[in-house]
Amino acid sequence: MSASTVVRQETPTPKFTHALSRTQQLVSARMEDALIGDDTLLAAMRYAITGGKMLRGFLVLESARLHEVSDEVALDAALAIECMHAYSLVHDDLPCMDDDDLRRGLPTLHRKWDEAMAVLAGDALQTLSFELLANPKFGANALTLIRMLAQASGKDGMVSGQMLDIAAETSPQPLTLEQIILLQRRKTGCLISWSATSGAVIANADTAPLRHYAEALGLAFQITDDILDVEGDAEKVGKRVRKDAEAGKATFVSVLGLDAAKARAQQLCNQACAALDVYGDRGETLREAARFVISRDS
Amino acid sequence: MSASTVVRQETPTPKFTHALSRTQQLVSARMEDALIGDDTLLAAMRYAITGGKMLRGFLVLESARLHEVSDEVALDAALAIECMHAYSLVHDDLPCMDDDDLRRGLPTLHRKWDEAMAVLAGDALQTLSFELLANPKFGANALTLIRMLAQASGKDGMVSGQMLDIAAETSPQPLTLEQIILLQRRKTGCLISWSATSGAVIANADTAPLRHYAEALGLAFQITDDILDVEGDAEKVGKRVRKDAEAGKATFVSVLGLDAAKARAQQLCNQACAALDVYGDRGETLREAARFVISRDS
Repeated sequence: MSASTVVRQETPTPKFTHALSRTQQLVSARMEDALIGDDTLLAAMRYAITGGKMLRGFLVLESARLHEVSDEVALDAALAIECMHAYSLVHDDLPCMDDDDLRRGLPTLHRKWDEAMAVLAGDALQTLSFELLANPKFGANALTLIRMLAQASGKDGMVSGQMLDIAAETSPQPLTLEQIILLQRRKTGCLISWSATSGAVIANADTAPLRHYAEALGLAFQITDDILDVEGDAEKVGKRVRKDAEAGKATFVSVLGLDAAKARAQQLCNQACAALDVYGDRGETLREAARFVISRDS
Repeated sequence: MSASTVVRQETPTPKFTHALSRTQQLVSARMEDALIGDDTLLAAMRYAITGGKMLRGFLVLESARLHEVSDEVALDAALAIECMHAYSLVHDDLPCMDDDDLRRGLPTLHRKWDEAMAVLAGDALQTLSFELLANPKFGANALTLIRMLAQASGKDGMVSGQMLDIAAETSPQPLTLEQIILLQRRKTGCLISWSATSGAVIANADTAPLRHYAEALGLAFQITDDILDVEGDAEKVGKRVRKDAEAGKATFVSVLGLDAAKARAQQLCNQACAALDVYGDRGETLREAARFVISRDS
């Protein structure tokens, strides 16, 4: 049995597991309030947010807790980032983009309704994200929070990462490791960094430790995604697997090999944990999150 | 020759014509700064903004001028609303929505590039709109400006109007006049109101006169659009015409008849002008704008 086929060890992460499930309950309840009503657009928006891990929302709540920002304030920021993430998935799944039928184990939004609904629900989710942040409850740093989210998600962040991803598909040359890292940073890393630093931004505290944590975490997350695409089970993962290899796409696994990719994920997990030294024991939930990210099976 | 085929009278609107062309120059220059770079995403975003009348940007600059808000401040708000408007057109033109090939006399974005680019450029334009507003230069009311724009453009505004429009297409019953008015208010009226009131919001002044002006102007604009769809020339209008009648769509013209629609547009123009009484002669450019809106041929 080679290292690459060893069954994953269950990592004990009791604080993280509890905090994540608490996030899912709180953010879902806040979402029900923000999207109350029986029209189809609202139903589609709720559908897009429901059923995710809400890792980004968890990072917001945890970042807030570390800086004595109340749940009441942080929850709207957590919902905002989940709306932003959900919109990006809905648009990414469209036939003209990744053309996916399955997301979180359920039909993608355009399969459940249609493409027009997927475009519009995604558009309205992005808008809602900014609407939630345009609230005096975030104090003097509300504008900073909004500007940083726009930079993380638009032409200089997530959308430009999506462009790089599309360009890579038709490029004759496979991406280099540096290019894969840049693509990951833009496509998913920026939103993860926003989430993890949001509490520090609201509290006007130093964002550097959480930024370093988030950069390592985001990269570890993507490497694990690439590993799951090779090793994972579609039913558990909740979306199509083996699609990178089928598309001949350069990934951390195709460039590094499976064992080196796993070693790199472990190394990044260690870096993420070390970045939290300044928070002492209070950073333990986020450390558990980093361990979970590299040991998850979905 | 019936009233409905009389050649339109050229309405003299020197102040408005000058201010509109000034808006186009200033907003285009600001856009070049904000979207500098040679990658395809930026080129597509510039393409989407270029060539429009920039009526919304004009309303922002004029609203600012009436409240002693500087061009330097107002220009970013003008570009923001043009980005928001451009994103909505790019997504509306998609094959899964209105499926249009022509916009402002040029190929629509998904025809010039492809659908994925249209989805992404639209997404990034919406983001940029909020990024431009998340600026301390707007002072204490920046958050209000952002929240109002989100409300005008998302699930309670433009996107919900687009939903009503799509629902109407498959409904067995044609829309009533009240439903057409509600649809117009959501789909285009909200953004026009945001534009016309933005200067008053920034200056912390009473927004009511400009809101009443904008409500009448927006409705007059849509009625004229419906008239142009019947009477207009595709080459001058810059987009496909007769498409409402072909689609059997209820419009102000199909419900009111051509002559009554024109009379209603004239009445709304008078209402819009009267709403500006409080501004005296200084409101003349906006009055000319209202007269232009109902006499335009494109």
